[in-house]
Amino acid sequence: MPYVNIKITKEGVTSNQKKELIKGVTGLLQDVLGKNPNTTVVVIDEVDTDNWGIAGEQVTVRRSRGE
Amino acid sequence: MPYVNIKITKEGVTSNQKKELIKGVTGLLQDVLGKNPNTTVVVIDEVDTDNWGIAGEQVTVRRSRGE
Amino acid sequence: MPYVNIKITKEGVTSNQKKELIKGVTGLLQDVLGKNPNTTVVVIDEVDTDNWGIAGEQVTVRRSRGE
Amino acid sequence: MPYVNIKITKEGVTSNQKKELIKGVTGLLQDVLGKNPNTTVVVIDEVDTDNWGIAGEQVTVRRSRGE
Amino acid sequence: MPYVNIKITKEGVTSNQKKELIKGVTGLLQDVLGKNPNTTVVVIDEVDTDNWGIAGEQVTVRRSRGE
Amino acid sequence: MPYVNIKITKEGVTSNQKKELIKGVTGLLQDVLGKNPNTTVVVIDEVDTDNWGIAGEQVTVRRSRGE
Repeated sequence: MPYVNIKITKEGVTSNQKKELIKGVTGLLQDVLGKNPNTTVVVIDEVDTDNWGIAGEQVTVRRSRGE
Repeated sequence: MPYVNIKITKEGVTSNQKKELIKGVTGLLQDVLGKNPNTTVVVIDEVDTDNWGIAGEQVTVRRSRGE
Repeated sequence: MPYVNIKITKEGVTSNQKKELIKGVTGLLQDVLGKNPNTTVVVIDEVDTDNWGIAGEQVTVRRSRGE
Repeated sequence: MPYVNIKITKEGVTSNQKKELIKGVTGLLQDVLGKNPNTTVVVIDEVDTDNWGIAGEQVTVRRSRGE
Repeated sequence: MPYVNIKITKEGVTSNQKKELIKGVTGLLQDVLGKNPNTTVVVIDEVDTDNWGIAGEQVTVRRSRGE
Repeated sequence: MPYVNIKITKEGVTSNQKKELIKGVTGLLQDVLGKNPNTTVVVIDEVDTDNWGIAGEQVTVRRSRGE
């Protein structure tokens, strides 16, 4: 029954990586809290780097400096 | 003034269905709690089936098995 | 499988009203989109009126004016 | 370390406007609460007007009436 | 820089279990996507069982039936 | 009509500081995007330091080291 939302920047995450995230988080909730995996929901949001800010700056700007 | 967020998989939801969801949820909050519909906000997020996990699996994978 | 989050101010919502919201939203998603109610998750967040702003003001302040 | 999520309708917001929002919110949290800007995260979600409801209506419908 | 939100019912989760969730999710994002753990943010929301619905029912009601 | 959610750790934020955050964010959205302040919603979530993780650690643990 847990609900997990993972927000990451949209920078070429593959379908297989998403599968690993979903499987990994669901397993973690089962291992740590005994949650039934059948009702664990995971939603991954990929956010455009123009729309993600850290340290007051767009990630797009940071990436252009090689950060 | 309530804020409602509905997350569903992106699988061909029509504009009319979205209208019904918005109207229905807004009406429900008015009926049950007496909330003024004029300031009720509803946001619908349609999530790619690759990015939605249930039971440790991507919905994409489940759909490919006909589930 | 849908996930619905309802945010309202914390102003004496009863357990029965919460039951009606949960039942109503789950039914709406079944009626409009054919979603299986068994996997529809609804989370209600009750927010302190000090922590909710509308029109640049705390709801607490608006309530003190009778709004 | 704060996390701020800004949801707005997808109606031609420019990259420069996003930069201003990110810079402004991060500065506000520093000014009001003394939060270290280096770890303040801001995520902007642009939502299709079909998917945003207010007063029980889609924003798309309101816009078509010139509202 | 990822942001992860874990929502679970408020049913006696210990501080140590929260530590394991935080450590586990942060490690998963490092392993799968190479994300720098220093800027990964995890927020755990514990939700009252009266405020969590599944299958159109409050979790409180389900728990009272031993589910 | 924008919706802004600010998540911060629960560490003695005063009602006046919350007022400043609400006023400041609402004004920012008006200044940058021309959004009508009357329908801008701001929700502040104060999160227990046990429930907030950064760099794989609870904030509670970091605070105990004076960080």
